[in-house]
Amino acid sequence: MRSIVKTIFIIVIMQSISLITKGEDGYKLWLRYNRIADNAKYNEYRKLTKYAIFPGSSSVIKAAREELLNGLNGMTSQNPIITDKITEGETLIIGTPKTSRLINANLFNDGLRQSGAEGYFIENATVYGKKCLVIGANSDIGLLYGVFNFLKLLQTNHSIHSLAISDHPRIQYRILDHWDNLDRTIERGYAGSSIWNWHKLPGYIDQRYIDYARANASVGINGAVLNNVNANALSLTPEYLVKAAALAKCFRPYGIKVYLSIKFSSPVEIGGLKTADPEDLQVQKWWRDKADEIYHYIPDFGGFLVKANSEGQPGPQTYGRSHPEGANMLADALEPHHGIVMWRAFVYDNKVPDRAAQAYNEFKPLDGKFKSNVIVQVKNGPIDFQPREPFHPLFGAMPATPLMLEVQVTQEYLGFSTQLVYLAPLFKECLESDTYAKGKGSTVARVIDGSLEGHAISGIAGVANTGADINWCGHPFAQANWYCFGRLAWNPYLTSESIADDWLRMTFTNDKDFIACIKKLMLNSRETAVNYMMPLGLHHIMASSHYGPGPWVKIGKAGSKNGAFFYYHQADSLGIGFDRTHTGSNAVAQYFPEVKSKFESLESCPDEFLLWFHHVNWDYKMRSGNTLWNELVHRYYSGADSVKQMQHQWDKMDGKIDKERFVAVKQLLAIQYQEAVWWRDACIEYFQTFSNLPLPANYAKPLHSLSYYQQLTNHYVDK
Amino acid sequence: MRSIVKTIFIIVIMQSISLITKGEDGYKLWLRYNRIADNAKYNEYRKLTKYAIFPGSSSVIKAAREELLNGLNGMTSQNPIITDKITEGETLIIGTPKTSRLINANLFNDGLRQSGAEGYFIENATVYGKKCLVIGANSDIGLLYGVFNFLKLLQTNHSIHSLAISDHPRIQYRILDHWDNLDRTIERGYAGSSIWNWHKLPGYIDQRYIDYARANASVGINGAVLNNVNANALSLTPEYLVKAAALAKCFRPYGIKVYLSIKFSSPVEIGGLKTADPEDLQVQKWWRDKADEIYHYIPDFGGFLVKANSEGQPGPQTYGRSHPEGANMLADALEPHHGIVMWRAFVYDNKVPDRAAQAYNEFKPLDGKFKSNVIVQVKNGPIDFQPREPFHPLFGAMPATPLMLEVQVTQEYLGFSTQLVYLAPLFKECLESDTYAKGKGSTVARVIDGSLEGHAISGIAGVANTGADINWCGHPFAQANWYCFGRLAWNPYLTSESIADDWLRMTFTNDKDFIACIKKLMLNSRETAVNYMMPLGLHHIMASSHYGPGPWVKIGKAGSKNGAFFYYHQADSLGIGFDRTHTGSNAVAQYFPEVKSKFESLESCPDEFLLWFHHVNWDYKMRSGNTLWNELVHRYYSGADSVKQMQHQWDKMDGKIDKERFVAVKQLLAIQYQEAVWWRDACIEYFQTFSNLPLPANYAKPLHSLSYYQQLTNHYVDK
Repeated sequence: MRSIVKTIFIIVIMQSISLITKGEDGYKLWLRYNRIADNAKYNEYRKLTKYAIFPGSSSVIKAAREELLNGLNGMTSQNPIITDKITEGETLIIGTPKTSRLINANLFNDGLRQSGAEGYFIENATVYGKKCLVIGANSDIGLLYGVFNFLKLLQTNHSIHSLAISDHPRIQYRILDHWDNLDRTIERGYAGSSIWNWHKLPGYIDQRYIDYARANASVGINGAVLNNVNANALSLTPEYLVKAAALAKCFRPYGIKVYLSIKFSSPVEIGGLKTADPEDLQVQKWWRDKADEIYHYIPDFGGFLVKANSEGQPGPQTYGRSHPEGANMLADALEPHHGIVMWRAFVYDNKVPDRAAQAYNEFKPLDGKFKSNVIVQVKNGPIDFQPREPFHPLFGAMPATPLMLEVQVTQEYLGFSTQLVYLAPLFKECLESDTYAKGKGSTVARVIDGSLEGHAISGIAGVANTGADINWCGHPFAQANWYCFGRLAWNPYLTSESIADDWLRMTFTNDKDFIACIKKLMLNSRETAVNYMMPLGLHHIMASSHYGPGPWVKIGKAGSKNGAFFYYHQADSLGIGFDRTHTGSNAVAQYFPEVKSKFESLESCPDEFLLWFHHVNWDYKMRSGNTLWNELVHRYYSGADSVKQMQHQWDKMDGKIDKERFVAVKQLLAIQYQEAVWWRDACIEYFQTFSNLPLPANYAKPLHSLSYYQQLTNHYVDK
Repeated sequence: MRSIVKTIFIIVIMQSISLITKGEDGYKLWLRYNRIADNAKYNEYRKLTKYAIFPGSSSVIKAAREELLNGLNGMTSQNPIITDKITEGETLIIGTPKTSRLINANLFNDGLRQSGAEGYFIENATVYGKKCLVIGANSDIGLLYGVFNFLKLLQTNHSIHSLAISDHPRIQYRILDHWDNLDRTIERGYAGSSIWNWHKLPGYIDQRYIDYARANASVGINGAVLNNVNANALSLTPEYLVKAAALAKCFRPYGIKVYLSIKFSSPVEIGGLKTADPEDLQVQKWWRDKADEIYHYIPDFGGFLVKANSEGQPGPQTYGRSHPEGANMLADALEPHHGIVMWRAFVYDNKVPDRAAQAYNEFKPLDGKFKSNVIVQVKNGPIDFQPREPFHPLFGAMPATPLMLEVQVTQEYLGFSTQLVYLAPLFKECLESDTYAKGKGSTVARVIDGSLEGHAISGIAGVANTGADINWCGHPFAQANWYCFGRLAWNPYLTSESIADDWLRMTFTNDKDFIACIKKLMLNSRETAVNYMMPLGLHHIMASSHYGPGPWVKIGKAGSKNGAFFYYHQADSLGIGFDRTHTGSNAVAQYFPEVKSKFESLESCPDEFLLWFHHVNWDYKMRSGNTLWNELVHRYYSGADSVKQMQHQWDKMDGKIDKERFVAVKQLLAIQYQEAVWWRDACIEYFQTFSNLPLPANYAKPLHSLSYYQQLTNHYVDK
């Protein structure tokens, strides 16, 4: 007998070893559900989840039940027995007041009240005299969110003995925007081709579609814009609507609605009309009919995302009409079906003196002119997803209009998929920015969650970083940006740290040393990237591919005062930086007085926005005591040095996680270091041609000459 | 104690269940190494592989050892103990005469002799009085092949008690051609973007590169052309050579050499020369220097693949020179490094009356004019990878020149990645074709393996169907085409059936019913596709995307006698088919007399090539007794009906394999049926406009009108 036990133990151990050493390809994201490594927790979880009461037959409930069983089976090697009787101390109860008589207002009044329409509560409760663990909600989708969050508690090794949790989303529309084209290329995608295989749709439903929906639901994302904002009109033809409908069907059990980007000229391109003028009655009818048709295919279709009169896209201005005239026409068509229009405020043409000021100038006067099912989508900053921007001045400036925050999850300007840059701190920096629109505490978060101005609808959008790479995002740590976007969309008041903590535990391990070390690495990573790319408020100095440095890239003549070529860094022999004070473009005046005065004064302007708002002399004395030039050099070098530190820290983690992902990240950090040095050296050498100042002592000489960096061509990096 | 055992058993069982039900994504291809399901075999394998003597430290040996341990661990839940002593009946010995004193000519004279330079032997032998299982070879790479084939024996549940196997490759260059572009698109790729991530190379080595090499080595493929034959000159710049070198480094332990497609005009495009004339001394020097440079980066570089003066590509004729003058210049540059030139004979310009005759006319006169390290690459048929073509008349017609067979593994004309079409029967049909070049028995296989004409070099190339889809090939069964190409490259005399048998067992299950049913389905699948696409010798009647039917697509005026548009089907009111006899293009005269006479006579021409060689009246009486029109209709309908049968057969397999792949194939078969009906109805209705004959009784009316099919636009299906 002893030898049998020994043999079986060996088998079990060998299987475990093989699982650890074989490595993981990252496909499972943060939903790995590996066996709980901590034996005490493993036993605790097994004991408390032996039985489950989980009635209900909707597709959402089915998805939740399957997720729960799959997750528990993976983590505790035990499938709960589905039952309808409570076994004291061993039973999970999962339900809504509609699906289970046990989830009623007498027993769970507080939990149900706090859960709201989409939220959930999880608590250890006594039900009819017996101790149970309860996941409750007012709706099926709330229950699904509750299940995912319960599984997260196990994944992150929380005790589940004395839970009393309730949670609900703060923002209504929590959407991923896919800039995916019909040919499966992705604009600003760095993880392979689009996950949407339009050719094989609708007949072939890739398992990936379901896993995509699961991942989104697990963090609370509830919408997906399937196609590029630079839209192809074909997406609205029946040929493609049946394909979008097939995706919508996959996503429905996970509470995710499908949206489409539309091309404003669609009535001409696919409708055979002679105009797309929003005041034209035929055009209006075409859109109403098209909306009816879409809802025929997709009864719960979410609505339209529109990029109009921006970067060459057609829009109402093409026909002499205004943004609201265009948006409201679409809103009229969608209104009977409860769809929304997300109208982007990202407009620029490089013809105004300061592009950063253009969206505010165009949109602020339009406040109050949009229909109630239009939401205006504003990027976090006034230029374009740079490594660091001040918050967009439109936030707080359109009190009569719901504004939707648009952030970029894909790392267009932040290292593609070769650099580890955790974006939660960037998102949070914007969300926590105080607009002072209604006095102190008028944060961007409160603008977009609707609480500041009492809007009926609220939204947030992230430009997706997903692709068909096995690990979805190209870089194992890029998954964290998808994850943190979802978490912040659900609750913009969470901290970057708590999100990183959860993500690391779910994605890699609960090992304390690993968590402590790598969480710090993640939290510092964005500041590091800013330092080696665009420190002190510098912006838009990348190569035209948006990969690597290109401070020498001319922007065009229109943007400058004297008709010459234009650079956002505005470097000259005296100094560097874009004067946006009253002596320059005066874009700073777009902010509320408290913010304006802080940014406008050289003394109070924070270092990180210095060169965003000011043209500053090379010998300007910084807070650090350094001259501006020396501080600039210091920032670039410390940025690259920090990557070297990241490499050292990662190397120490060898053995703590699976080999495959360890090696992948190790290799990518080595690339990131090369790229950081490239940025540093190219920018320092280029700016040196203006400052004519030497490198301070103790800084290694750049590896190559400026001309070397200027002649580099980055073939095929931008897809 | 009993309860502990019970608990542990339950754990083990639960883990197994979870493995089965979770499904498989297909990433592991035929190298899954799942636990052996048959318990008797499981115990047999465990007993005979408890210990292993496996000395050696080369990278190839290390790869072989890792594969062996990984495979055995997966299949037998046991890692052999690496030892240097023989334990009777429980020891594996793996070695070459150089790595192990046990593998010597006294003990294994026959095995070593039969293994040749690259082969291996596997036998149960008595070594110094003790029974062992031996895998031996003369070279490290032979040993790697031996290990893969030993693992295959276990995967396919062979007994390993009394083995006496030896094997070696019949063809020297066994190459996959990747038509992959530097932007990660793939010409004729239907499984996502290129697996080569040029942006992240050389710093990031995707695990996929190693798994690609493993898969290739497991079937004996020993070369990969990394880039599209429609080549980008950038591939020869240092920027890309370091990337190719990184791939070569990954592949080296698996015996796979890297090759590059070259653009003939590279000396101009990246070399700064004014000409690429092969007779120009500077051009010759440029290529010699370039070859030296390539070998500096990749010491074991394989050579060049060249598409010259074909479909708009530049070539020696651009400068008034001949194919041999171009090829020999490159061969001169590669010769000091032992590289080869693969010069494609796929030349056509649609300006000759019959494109099928062009390659023969151009190349036959060049026989004997190529240098010894040039091999001329000839497609299986004279047009272009059609569902069925007669063998290319160049086979046997250039006895003084080694010819390399080029087949298409990717299903450009055979249903992209939505159709299950097992291509081994297509490859075999060509390989077994008798050219009669040296009398009966002069098969294409004997031409290309060099045995017919005694050539020093021999080769075969397959256009790869790999992409970044998780399952590599888009369709789970498309993996079989990669697999069978490799197996036939190693040994063109294998049967389609035996290869399908191995592949099914390794890829899915050893379940007898599954193997019997699905093997038959696979073996019939290509004939089925021919029937619903292009039966009876019809060819080149697809839409211009090569997806779906397009018999109405005009080819161009040049190809016809009277300057009108041109169709390969040549249908008119009298009949259908391309007259290639002496009354037509007389292309049939390019074959040796025995073949020519068989094809040229209506009576002896096989049905499957009838309309390839003959224009036949609609009322011609076929062997079946049907008129040609009725037979054509019958073939189209029976093709589509066969797909319906495939669906029924597959449905019966529910439960025999994992759910994920079962559902994937089920969905794809449903698409295939739609596509088969589309082909059938569109072609029948179109040809009916010529025959003016009714459908015979009992055939369902086509679903749509001809004009419906003609107006269909297949957006974005071809990438």
